[in-house]
Amino acid sequence: MIVSIIGSGAIGMFYGTLLIDAGEEVHFLCRSDYETVKEKGIFIESKLRGNKTFENIHVHKDSCDMPISDIVIVSLKTTENEKLLPVLLPPIVKKETTIVIIQNGLGVEADVAKLFPDQQIIGGLAFISSSKVAPGHILHIDHGNLSLGYFNHVNEQNIQTIVAKLNQQNIKVILSDDLNKLRWRKLVWNIAFNGMTVVLGCQTDKLMQSKDLIGLSKDIMEEVISGAKACGAELDVNLPSQMIQYTIDMPAYSPSMKLDYDHQRPMEIHYIYEEPIRIAKEAGYYMSKVDMLTKQLKFKQQFEY
Amino acid sequence: MIVSIIGSGAIGMFYGTLLIDAGEEVHFLCRSDYETVKEKGIFIESKLRGNKTFENIHVHKDSCDMPISDIVIVSLKTTENEKLLPVLLPPIVKKETTIVIIQNGLGVEADVAKLFPDQQIIGGLAFISSSKVAPGHILHIDHGNLSLGYFNHVNEQNIQTIVAKLNQQNIKVILSDDLNKLRWRKLVWNIAFNGMTVVLGCQTDKLMQSKDLIGLSKDIMEEVISGAKACGAELDVNLPSQMIQYTIDMPAYSPSMKLDYDHQRPMEIHYIYEEPIRIAKEAGYYMSKVDMLTKQLKFKQQFEY
Repeated sequence: MIVSIIGSGAIGMFYGTLLIDAGEEVHFLCRSDYETVKEKGIFIESKLRGNKTFENIHVHKDSCDMPISDIVIVSLKTTENEKLLPVLLPPIVKKETTIVIIQNGLGVEADVAKLFPDQQIIGGLAFISSSKVAPGHILHIDHGNLSLGYFNHVNEQNIQTIVAKLNQQNIKVILSDDLNKLRWRKLVWNIAFNGMTVVLGCQTDKLMQSKDLIGLSKDIMEEVISGAKACGAELDVNLPSQMIQYTIDMPAYSPSMKLDYDHQRPMEIHYIYEEPIRIAKEAGYYMSKVDMLTKQLKFKQQFEY
Repeated sequence: MIVSIIGSGAIGMFYGTLLIDAGEEVHFLCRSDYETVKEKGIFIESKLRGNKTFENIHVHKDSCDMPISDIVIVSLKTTENEKLLPVLLPPIVKKETTIVIIQNGLGVEADVAKLFPDQQIIGGLAFISSSKVAPGHILHIDHGNLSLGYFNHVNEQNIQTIVAKLNQQNIKVILSDDLNKLRWRKLVWNIAFNGMTVVLGCQTDKLMQSKDLIGLSKDIMEEVISGAKACGAELDVNLPSQMIQYTIDMPAYSPSMKLDYDHQRPMEIHYIYEEPIRIAKEAGYYMSKVDMLTKQLKFKQQFEY
């Protein structure tokens, strides 16, 4: 089985090297990291799993040079989907290829399906703390479990192989029929804290020292739960309290959007904010505070970059 | 007739000196400005009205030394009301005294009436651009009209005298039966732009360069209009569009709360935000985005001072 990784950031390199460890043939598309990975391989630094260097990587600058693949894992930032996927995917997908989209937000699979209407698609969410600290060097801080959900009918054998191989590597993989619910559930935390840390210019710990911001984070989470409900995803109403407590208990944290903002990279506003708002609105629920946060974020992106 | 000014900032000194010009006996309570005003008087710098120095001012450090007054104009920042009014007012009010509260927000008169249940009260809103640039030195930039509204039954003769005297000075004074509507109308602009310039760290002009912020400002104004309606104040539904256009056309501006924030002074969050939210909620309408803005402002005040 051939696996290709489109988007060799922290997520793509982490799961890609796990699959190498499990014996799969894995190809990586790298742009800025190409020379480093070609020469020195990929270095995964992890207290939890041990440090390991992967040498002799199948690394490519251009997807035209990559083999047609059984599984394509898309782990780009969603801000690049529109521009890159129509170019990168055609050379490596055949009819039987399953595209596994490990990205944040809502509506990504539907947009990929517009580009490739007959393709088999799985959506995925990574629950992981990791970051790329240098070219080809991933720092894995914690966690690593993966939730996958069917967007449409896929070749069961290929995806079950991936699940089994990752399980072998002590990664818990949930494979669910309810992708919509998986995505909405992750949005509950992501919508509240990605945006608020950017707009208020701080990490999670400072927000959690303010009873006003605890209240507001809860308000926003409750809106997301109502949005999810309108879209047919019934989430636990205790989720906001649980997530607030979890956030209070964890060390100071910058969500991915805060890191993007701090480094003046494009923020994933479209799929984490605009699409959920649009989809919930179409289903009859207007997420008022989420809309406000989105407009504030777009202002920040327009003027502070 | 004896007029006392409690709160000798830009508003108090501007209207106070106009009443001196109109021949009234006006007493000023000054704290930090006392020595300067005692020695040099009050200097009003105004391109519109001409510069003028007022000498031999009746200036006092303590309201115990002030005469019992026919009219008391309260032009403190509302953040000081709770602490100062119970101390400052008793020495200068008699049963017949009318208290004229020229302050921003909603609910100020009701709170003053709790302290002085039998007192005659008028609420007032100043439409003026002015600031104190040095002790006893007011820079009057533009406007100056005053809207007054009855909170309860007052001595008509005293208040009509004030109105007539200010009219003599080319200040248009509206005296209205609908104080509630006056206050809500001013809140439409104030709630949107005071908070948003603080939270997003910029002046009005930058907000108006963003279609997202134009949209959000309008959303917030519409919420305030719905809040007003719930409270019995029917405002023109075209107000948001008009106010947005007015704000687009005006030069870069820092609302008073932005100036307070920039100088790390307490912000008038209670009467401009919390009271309107509470009062509208009691009347059956929840201003969701206004509530979010309030929580963001309280966070800013807690952590960035």
